[in-house]
Amino acid sequence: MIYAGIDLGGTSIKGALVTDKGEILRKKSIPAGAERSHREVVTDMANLILDLMTEEGLTPEEVASVGVGSPGAIDPEKGEVIFAANFADFRNVPMRSIMEEILEMPVYVDNDANVAALGESMFGAGEGCRNCVALTLGTGLGGGVIIDGKIFSGAFYGGAELGHQVIVVDGEPCTCGRKGCWEAYSSATALIRMGKEAALAHPDSQLGSLAGEGLAEMEAKTVFDAAQAGDEVAQGVIDVYIKYLAAGIVNTINVFQPEVLIVGGGVSAQGEKLMEPLREKVQQEVFGGQADKTQLRAATLGNDAGVIGAAMLGIE
Amino acid sequence: MIYAGIDLGGTSIKGALVTDKGEILRKKSIPAGAERSHREVVTDMANLILDLMTEEGLTPEEVASVGVGSPGAIDPEKGEVIFAANFADFRNVPMRSIMEEILEMPVYVDNDANVAALGESMFGAGEGCRNCVALTLGTGLGGGVIIDGKIFSGAFYGGAELGHQVIVVDGEPCTCGRKGCWEAYSSATALIRMGKEAALAHPDSQLGSLAGEGLAEMEAKTVFDAAQAGDEVAQGVIDVYIKYLAAGIVNTINVFQPEVLIVGGGVSAQGEKLMEPLREKVQQEVFGGQADKTQLRAATLGNDAGVIGAAMLGIE
Repeated sequence: MIYAGIDLGGTSIKGALVTDKGEILRKKSIPAGAERSHREVVTDMANLILDLMTEEGLTPEEVASVGVGSPGAIDPEKGEVIFAANFADFRNVPMRSIMEEILEMPVYVDNDANVAALGESMFGAGEGCRNCVALTLGTGLGGGVIIDGKIFSGAFYGGAELGHQVIVVDGEPCTCGRKGCWEAYSSATALIRMGKEAALAHPDSQLGSLAGEGLAEMEAKTVFDAAQAGDEVAQGVIDVYIKYLAAGIVNTINVFQPEVLIVGGGVSAQGEKLMEPLREKVQQEVFGGQADKTQLRAATLGNDAGVIGAAMLGIE
Repeated sequence: MIYAGIDLGGTSIKGALVTDKGEILRKKSIPAGAERSHREVVTDMANLILDLMTEEGLTPEEVASVGVGSPGAIDPEKGEVIFAANFADFRNVPMRSIMEEILEMPVYVDNDANVAALGESMFGAGEGCRNCVALTLGTGLGGGVIIDGKIFSGAFYGGAELGHQVIVVDGEPCTCGRKGCWEAYSSATALIRMGKEAALAHPDSQLGSLAGEGLAEMEAKTVFDAAQAGDEVAQGVIDVYIKYLAAGIVNTINVFQPEVLIVGGGVSAQGEKLMEPLREKVQQEVFGGQADKTQLRAATLGNDAGVIGAAMLGIE
């Protein structure tokens, strides 16, 4: 059987046809047009699935279901997007019913971070495990929790906000209004902020010169590249970054104790340069000497995690 | 049907016969004798159940099962206590098989904090809810998590260690070896420590005089009593204590988003003197303005939560 998935983002709508083994048969991306009415956006999502089916020569009978990973607060039971900040008209959007009307197929909707975690847990770094936590280190710090093979998001679908646990009371301000959230220390944005602060304090460092005029080219990768080239200032930034990242990961393991904890998002592209020191730090601190139980792995599906996980909502 | 429960502690073994409505028909407590061999301790536990049944005039056919809440690391599938620090001989104890041999009834074993959470969620402050987190503010800060009516403790039964999430990186040392764990700020022990520090700094305060010679009588209650009597030093301690307690509770709500979060243990005896300022602080900070979803309540079963929850392991 074939499953269709949609990964809705602020800039693009990605669609794919996926086998029950997690293999992508065909995928396609169109602009999100986030400034439009929700009906226009959701109609485009449905039409993208129809296009993919036509191109692949599939009849509606050959596609089991359509799953959608959407940003924002989602009610998966009703298939509604309660609110998504990046879209002009995304408030109480009956996404499932609009799409089912067009497609005449079962449609499932869940949060994008949850859906990406489901994808990684089934066919990525967590393949074969039933209990898994996936982090996305990007603009923010997103988390998805899979318990017993299913997405966990609390009693009211607003849980699993792993990035919004305070690890430093009265610490750095967070976009959520609290101070000292893990996201404010361990997102890619936070690493860039720390990189810029260090480069300003040490303008003659390699980090400073790699970051370019006005530090405009500072990225997470810049800090890792400078450290790799032997720059002590950059290495200092990475040491601090990993210390905070490890603190939140140990918190998460102490609470969820998953089989696998997956680190994804832009920063995870650094692979073992990130993962090796991170594992070392985490293993020192996990409660009850149970550090060897949870495996720490870098994500493997990259940008496809969302669309694969979305398709799998129908299997789950 | 009647269910038997045992709440094993470092000083006493509590046993009870409980109805499926959570009512205690009969209970009894005997010394734990924690210095003895595990077989002696576990045999006493089984005999306590037999005594209770005899006293209540019940035949083995009238009692459905026996549940045990034990301290330490537990494997509920095998019914084994892997390790419990307070007992001299509690390493890989086949508790279920020893008890089933004596009792010829089904025996279930789980961690004491988990079992107390189950009791509170079924018949205490969380009555009727399927998703619930219960905290115990005592010597340590214990947590139990109920998801979909079942105890959640991670893939390897070592999760739900809510007290061992760092809320202040590089903060106060914790018994677990980390620095800055929630337990080090929000257990009763932590409140007493903060009370002593404040009394030492302000020996003329009411807090100082209430705490007695050498501060030997400082308890959690002492700090609340002094604050109630108008002592500003004590009120300052409580404000700080509630700030940290709220930080960890908001973290927990952001991650689990339970229907009810229950605050139990010695400190919770303060009732609304604790809960009212706590609710106010928590509501300011919960992610996505969803503070109204999770209800914050003081535990209602007191010391019976463990024995009632243990009995309910057989119903679960």
